[in-house]
Order: sequence, then structure tokens, then C-alpha cells
Amino acid sequence: MNSPEIEHLIHLMSRLPGLGPRSARRAALTLLKKREALLEPLAKAMSDAAAAIRTCPDCGNLDTQVPCAICTDEMRDGGILCVVADVADLWALERSGAFRGRYHVLGGTLSALDGIGPDDLNLPSLIERAANPSLREVILALGATVTGQTTAHYITDRLSRPDLQISGLAHGVPVGGELDFLDDGTLSAAISARRPV
Amino acid sequence: MNSPEIEHLIHLMSRLPGLGPRSARRAALTLLKKREALLEPLAKAMSDAAAAIRTCPDCGNLDTQVPCAICTDEMRDGGILCVVADVADLWALERSGAFRGRYHVLGGTLSALDGIGPDDLNLPSLIERAANPSLREVILALGATVTGQTTAHYITDRLSRPDLQISGLAHGVPVGGELDFLDDGTLSAAISARRPV
Repeated sequence: MNSPEIEHLIHLMSRLPGLGPRSARRAALTLLKKREALLEPLAKAMSDAAAAIRTCPDCGNLDTQVPCAICTDEMRDGGILCVVADVADLWALERSGAFRGRYHVLGGTLSALDGIGPDDLNLPSLIERAANPSLREVILALGATVTGQTTAHYITDRLSRPDLQISGLAHGVPVGGELDFLDDGTLSAAISARRPV
Repeated sequence: MNSPEIEHLIHLMSRLPGLGPRSARRAALTLLKKREALLEPLAKAMSDAAAAIRTCPDCGNLDTQVPCAICTDEMRDGGILCVVADVADLWALERSGAFRGRYHVLGGTLSALDGIGPDDLNLPSLIERAANPSLREVILALGATVTGQTTAHYITDRLSRPDLQISGLAHGVPVGGELDFLDDGTLSAAISARRPV
């Protein structure tokens, strides 16, 4: 009943994560009502991003330069490689500011249920990068889920080299978290890995 | 820390209703990962919509043609005018298929709290349209809220003409609704307006 341009816009908006058919219609209407303030700048930002953003061939990060700013940053430690499942995880770690090495984005985790095997992930390039003798440590920053831990085990098997340290993220109570709301698994892990104060 | 193109895209996405900073980042990342399937078509759909969609000068609807398809549809009854607050309400009524007259979009409701007075709404053009002697009925399809009912009263005062029927939407139990979950006001209205079966 609406014009095809509006229906097409609503249909595409509804494919974004977090937007269902109703909220996509609401978002499209907001765009159409704020044509100069929002619709036109967003259309331009999207075509600019589509033209400029590339996937880094080395690490899998998204950036305007190839290789990406992290891979070419001379101030970062090339001896430590942090393996993450997704670009979102890389962004989260960068926001924390706690890591100053380089990254490797797998593009997912091994999952028999979803039919994702080793060939569907950036694993060959990881094994190739890990063969570089200047690499001292690989941090497996994968989720504490079944698929994340399966992937971590798989990578640990493949990368075994006597002089290469392979580590994982610490498990425990989240900073700012209440014990009351934590699940049993996290509490057990926090007790087992207790540290002197 | 991300490239300016990505940060700008996330910033604009976060201004859409239903998307906060975190979900905007997630949506932007989905777009960047699905460049050909989603980002490029969405950028094109947005610039197409920005170029093609206009506000109808008669009723306030959004459409590619001016006046809009509803105002120019000869099959619709020009003798009945349905007043709605927003284009979203017009879309909702059109989806129901229950109304075959024409619309008038106010662009909001009177609200002293938000500083929205009669001059901020499309009220002069409504009074002008209502002066047309061929108009038999005005339906005030405004929300059953304080601002909606204030606006309905204001319009009823301004449009008083002996031969013009002014009506409002019926209040009662929503179709498919459980009595248990209804508020007292709706139940009272449904009891007062009870009808023989």
C-alpha cells in the first residue's frame, strides 16, 4: 500500500540485527521525516563506508587502509597475537585498551551444529602467522562457550611449538559484578583461580 | 580508534529509534560484513527514498507522487476525512483496510509540556479543508491519551458546523485481548459502551 521505495527501505532495514518488522518501519519513518538531518547523511555515510572499508588480508580487521592500522602500527608488539572470533570482539578489546599486540580474526567459531568447520574460518592463515619465529605468545580470546572452547582446543593442537606460549583469558567475577547474580560455573572458576590479595 | 568512516556510520545509526550505542555498533558491523548483500543496497534505497519521497501538501502523507496516491485516488470517499497525529497512524489504519476516505496528518498532538501549540501542527490546513461543503464527516483518530484527547477537543471546537459529523474511534476491549490484562479505564469504557449481541 506504501510506495515501493518505502517498502523496499523498510524491508532492508528489517534485516539489521535488533530491528524487527515493526521497529524497521518506525526507523524508516524517522528517516523519511528527518530527510536532511538523518536520511541523506546516513545514505552518504553508508556509500562512503562501502567504498572505503576493506577487510585486512593479514588479520581480518575492517579498516580504510590495507593492511589495517593495527597491523601497520610500529608501536604495537608484533610478538603477541590475540585470536578473536569476530571483528566485534577486536573492537571490544581495543576499547578496553588493555592489549597492545596484534590480532587475528577467525570470522567465527567451530560449530558442528551450524556446519562451521576449520575450512570456513581463517585458520590456515593463523597457522602460517604462528610459524613466524618472532611470535612469542598467542592469546586465545574466545568466548567461554562450547564452540569457543572447542575452537581454542583445536587451535592449541595445531599451534604446538615448544617456544610458543599459548594462553587464554582469565575466568572469574566480572569487575563491578555482584556475586548474587553470577552463575555457578563462573563462581566455581573464580574460587579455583583465587589469588592472594 | 576505529576509522572515522566507521565511527560516523555508528554515530548516525545510533540516532535511529530502537538502536542505542551498542546495538548501533552491532548493526554497523553487520552492514560492513555484508557489504554487497546489505550495505550497498541499503545505501541505494536510502538515497532513492531521499530523492523520491515527498510530503503531500494536502494531507501530510509521505509518497513519491504529489499530491499523494490516497489524495488522488478517485475510488476513495472525499466526503470523509480521518485526522491522525502521525504518518505511522495513517500507515496503521491503511494496513487495517477499514477506512476508504481521505486523511489529514497533524504532525503531532497539542502538548503544553513539550511546548507544542496549535501553530506547530497542520491545523490551519485542516480547518480550511473542513470548510469544504462536500465534507460530511471528520473522524478524529487520535490516541486515547491526554494530549490526543486535548487535541480532539481543540479540533471539535474549531470545526463546529451544523452539517458536519465529527466522530472519534470506539473504545473497548482489543480484538483478541484478554479481560484479565486490561486496565480499568478500558474495561469501564467497554462496559459503558456495551452493545446488544
